Amino acid sequence: MTADEATRRFRARGLSAASAALVVAHLADADAAGKSGHGLARVPWLEGLLATAADPAGRPELVERNDGYERWHGGGALGYLTLDTVCRRLETHPPERARLVVCEACFPTGMLGGWARRLADMGLVAVVTATSPARLPHPSGGAPLTGTNPIAIAVPSSEGPPMVSDVSMGAVTHGDVLSGRAVPEELVPFGGPLAHKAFALAVGVELLVSALAGPEPGAIVLAARPGYDPVPAFRALAAGRRLPGDRA
Amino acid sequence: MTADEATRRFRARGLSAASAALVVAHLADADAAGKSGHGLARVPWLEGLLATAADPAGRPELVERNDGYERWHGGGALGYLTLDTVCRRLETHPPERARLVVCEACFPTGMLGGWARRLADMGLVAVVTATSPARLPHPSGGAPLTGTNPIAIAVPSSEGPPMVSDVSMGAVTHGDVLSGRAVPEELVPFGGPLAHKAFALAVGVELLVSALAGPEPGAIVLAARPGYDPVPAFRALAAGRRLPGDRA
Repeated sequence: MTADEATRRFRARGLSAASAALVVAHLADADAAGKSGHGLARVPWLEGLLATAADPAGRPELVERNDGYERWHGGGALGYLTLDTVCRRLETHPPERARLVVCEACFPTGMLGGWARRLADMGLVAVVTATSPARLPHPSGGAPLTGTNPIAIAVPSSEGPPMVSDVSMGAVTHGDVLSGRAVPEELVPFGGPLAHKAFALAVGVELLVSALAGPEPGAIVLAARPGYDPVPAFRALAAGRRLPGDRA
Repeated sequence: MTADEATRRFRARGLSAASAALVVAHLADADAAGKSGHGLARVPWLEGLLATAADPAGRPELVERNDGYERWHGGGALGYLTLDTVCRRLETHPPERARLVVCEACFPTGMLGGWARRLADMGLVAVVTATSPARLPHPSGGAPLTGTNPIAIAVPSSEGPPMVSDVSMGAVTHGDVLSGRAVPEELVPFGGPLAHKAFALAVGVELLVSALAGPEPGAIVLAARPGYDPVPAFRALAAGRRLPGDRA
């Protein structure tokens, strides 16, 4: 799947040229970051969404705001477009110090580290987390209870790239299952004998996001102005070891 | 170590009666929750802190605030006392919708789930995370780079207790090492072959908290008013399986 082919297909499903370009850019970034489960291979699945649950003409709407808090509703748009809108607004209307942005009906959200990195590139520290359809069971078994519920954290640096940590709670990704690299039974909380830890984080994210954004899959973004610049000293301490978000 | 004995020892080290009572209550809560690494067994270690790095008469100070953001400095007080003050202020001055509270020089912070639970008991959703002295190495080895850097998330419920998730990124706790239940070599990021995931979360917390709260160990608290009540339906879905924070 090329970017041009993806753009053509999204346009055929009714996305505007601008929206198609934003979605394709996010998918291509995911491929470039080695997160192919969030990459252009998702196009057929997204075409299906645009034919069913998503609205190709949907637009996210800002429904509540003060300096420290905003709440958006996805309005049927693909979640990528809501998060793009949220990032653009944080650039044009940054918080005085900190803002929690709640995104209701925001799905799919793609590679969360990409949004966090974009905010760090604006000089903000960022935490992005999101829910998605239930895929992870309790470590003792049973039906899936939570999404893979990634947590992404990005911190800008005065020297070199930001640190971008982006961790899902699954031992494999849903993208791995979609592509046949893993079987559904492998999609469990990571950690082996300590899988209760990753499960607890997944439950924490599930209920945090649900309490703020409601029952449909949603996302939250915390953005704040840093007071300090810890990344250069941390890189020096790490003495050349690869840090989260470093490209190979 | 009894609560009375702990109180007597803290008073002998110069803590006020009120401060000693708050610290002992937190330690006893940790023991009751089965988190004995944060319990009364810590008293001798805390006595050492009070004789060196901490100030028995220290008081946390609110140095910056707006509705969505507050920044505190620990002022030499034990971190427990700063977090107690932050929780009390969130009760008397709750955020209109959401607030990020940054705590500089806030150590030790104890069982983070205890503070998150207290905020959930006030009806707020809460995320609490904190840094601590470096104890976790990179999964490929080398010197310790990050604290165990727990993340606690609490969500209130209209039926029954809140959900409280409290996960440190270590395969064992520092308390396990202090008490001899584990050797220092076991204090690595959890996850076995996927330990890079827990390490990435530890690095994310380390740099997020450091960027907001500075180079000394610190803590951040995100508190927000929930718009939804997802815990009862989630408990029903879990069909009796133990959820994070449920007492045995």
